[in-house]
Amino acid sequence: MKRARSGAIVVLAGGVGAARLLRGLAPLCPPAALTVIVNTADDDVFHGLAVSPDLDTVLYTLAGLADAERGWGLRGDTFHSLSMLQRYGRETWFRLGDRDLATHILRTERLRAGAKLSEFTAWQARALGIPFRVLPMTDDPVRTIVVTTAGRRSFQQYLVRDRARGRIRSIRYAGVRTARPAPGVLAAIERASTILLAPSNPFVSIGPILALPGVRPALRRSAAAVVGISPLIGGRPVKGPADRMMRALGHRPTPSGLARVYRDLLDGLVIDRRDEAFQARLRAAGLAVAVCDTLMPTASRAAAVARVALELATTARRERGRAG
Amino acid sequence: MKRARSGAIVVLAGGVGAARLLRGLAPLCPPAALTVIVNTADDDVFHGLAVSPDLDTVLYTLAGLADAERGWGLRGDTFHSLSMLQRYGRETWFRLGDRDLATHILRTERLRAGAKLSEFTAWQARALGIPFRVLPMTDDPVRTIVVTTAGRRSFQQYLVRDRARGRIRSIRYAGVRTARPAPGVLAAIERASTILLAPSNPFVSIGPILALPGVRPALRRSAAAVVGISPLIGGRPVKGPADRMMRALGHRPTPSGLARVYRDLLDGLVIDRRDEAFQARLRAAGLAVAVCDTLMPTASRAAAVARVALELATTARRERGRAG
Repeated sequence: MKRARSGAIVVLAGGVGAARLLRGLAPLCPPAALTVIVNTADDDVFHGLAVSPDLDTVLYTLAGLADAERGWGLRGDTFHSLSMLQRYGRETWFRLGDRDLATHILRTERLRAGAKLSEFTAWQARALGIPFRVLPMTDDPVRTIVVTTAGRRSFQQYLVRDRARGRIRSIRYAGVRTARPAPGVLAAIERASTILLAPSNPFVSIGPILALPGVRPALRRSAAAVVGISPLIGGRPVKGPADRMMRALGHRPTPSGLARVYRDLLDGLVIDRRDEAFQARLRAAGLAVAVCDTLMPTASRAAAVARVALELATTARRERGRAG
Repeated sequence: MKRARSGAIVVLAGGVGAARLLRGLAPLCPPAALTVIVNTADDDVFHGLAVSPDLDTVLYTLAGLADAERGWGLRGDTFHSLSMLQRYGRETWFRLGDRDLATHILRTERLRAGAKLSEFTAWQARALGIPFRVLPMTDDPVRTIVVTTAGRRSFQQYLVRDRARGRIRSIRYAGVRTARPAPGVLAAIERASTILLAPSNPFVSIGPILALPGVRPALRRSAAAVVGISPLIGGRPVKGPADRMMRALGHRPTPSGLARVYRDLLDGLVIDRRDEAFQARLRAAGLAVAVCDTLMPTASRAAAVARVALELATTARRERGRAG
């Protein structure tokens, strides 16, 4: 397989959408070249266990163990433990698989023993044979709170338990002001040649990472080309409530709306063929644009999107060099 | 089914042997009449989870969920979580089933939140629909340590990991001197009409309960007839290393040896047909004796043994009344 020559690559990642991209991107990257910085603001505690859904989705994907179709958890996992928790009268709307539980059990054990989430994550990646660097965005507790007309919800309550029902009033990241980026996060951003914003939800996946003190300044300081991959296709996300969130928070669910959410950060944006009409407007706003089929149902389609994004980053760097 | 008329019944219980008896005894007892006091000295922590093997064996049995053939765990349980723990490089000699894990996860959560083991156990029994009272012997940490020629071992390391290999030098119950019997334990013993010592290992199952401050005095104060069911058949236990332990600690693995281990506590002893030769000697030592087939491969055979034990207790009370 032809390897990408894009220098150090950093991906800002949520869960499902990021995993789809990484399935295609990772095989193109030499191990030392790829760092994935993962959202932790939808981490939660279930039955006393520390669960980091986005980190696990990314790690299981990079280990080749993910259930790519479902978008979360381990391929072929079973739910016997959960059925027993239910027998004990527990709420089991958050689906924890039997093999998945091993991760949460070990994470909980290590965190209780005083380890940082980033230390556990590095250990977990090694244990799963992952040659890339995967960093939680922070070791400090940051939690996405979705305020709907029905009340205040943790992100998992909103998305999984309530199935994203209820009109969103606001979204905030509790704890983000005093949180520090995990060790290596700012340095990776500053040293990167290419920074990809995964096709994840801009508010609840990429948003918390960008809201961490120091991350936006590091992105601006970085010489890297910053390229987003739009999670929208014809005004709708492939999965999840991104479009409703964008509307609720005053943005159009379009590539232009997305570019506005990411404001001054983007050098380029990869958009879907069905959103080709936005190309001119985005170019006029100073963005490099690539158009392709962004749906990634297979690894080879994901690799194609990853290649387009890396090429767009190269173009953006060249254009910027010409402009500068 | 004919109910037993034996007043309040207390069973001092380990794991496997006690479960075999309880499978037959429980259906004979009105719910309010039965209290099971369970050994906790082979409790341990695996992967950060608080595991109470004997309590779970007793509770799963009383809930009709136990794997009676294997002697531990839940019937039909799977081991997917454990296989993932192994993939993470963990030692998995202690077999934790997927559904079984739910128990340890919840126990760990509650204990960490400040609950006592006896509170969690009462909740667990209710949640599993068990109408009997099941008490851990203590809420304080007591741990059986087996010192073999190979070194100091926790009980689970000795029994499960090392498969009871190594010559035993001594057995001690770390923490027992400062431990207090759990709420209800001494009162249940004092108010009982019948106290059964389950056919469990006298050193590592019944021994720790008897070693708790206040338990032996309460047994002596109690008006109850104390009846043991011998775990030995022809000099060997049905399961486990009881015979080797008895020899190593200077006792013969016979009904007489067992009676000596329980010294001044027993009023009666149920022994197996193959040990009938010991009857006269035990009677001469002042014990009421019943002889029957003590192997309990089925619930009906277990019920037969339970009935013999309850009748022997009635006999022993009558004889004592005549003597007094």
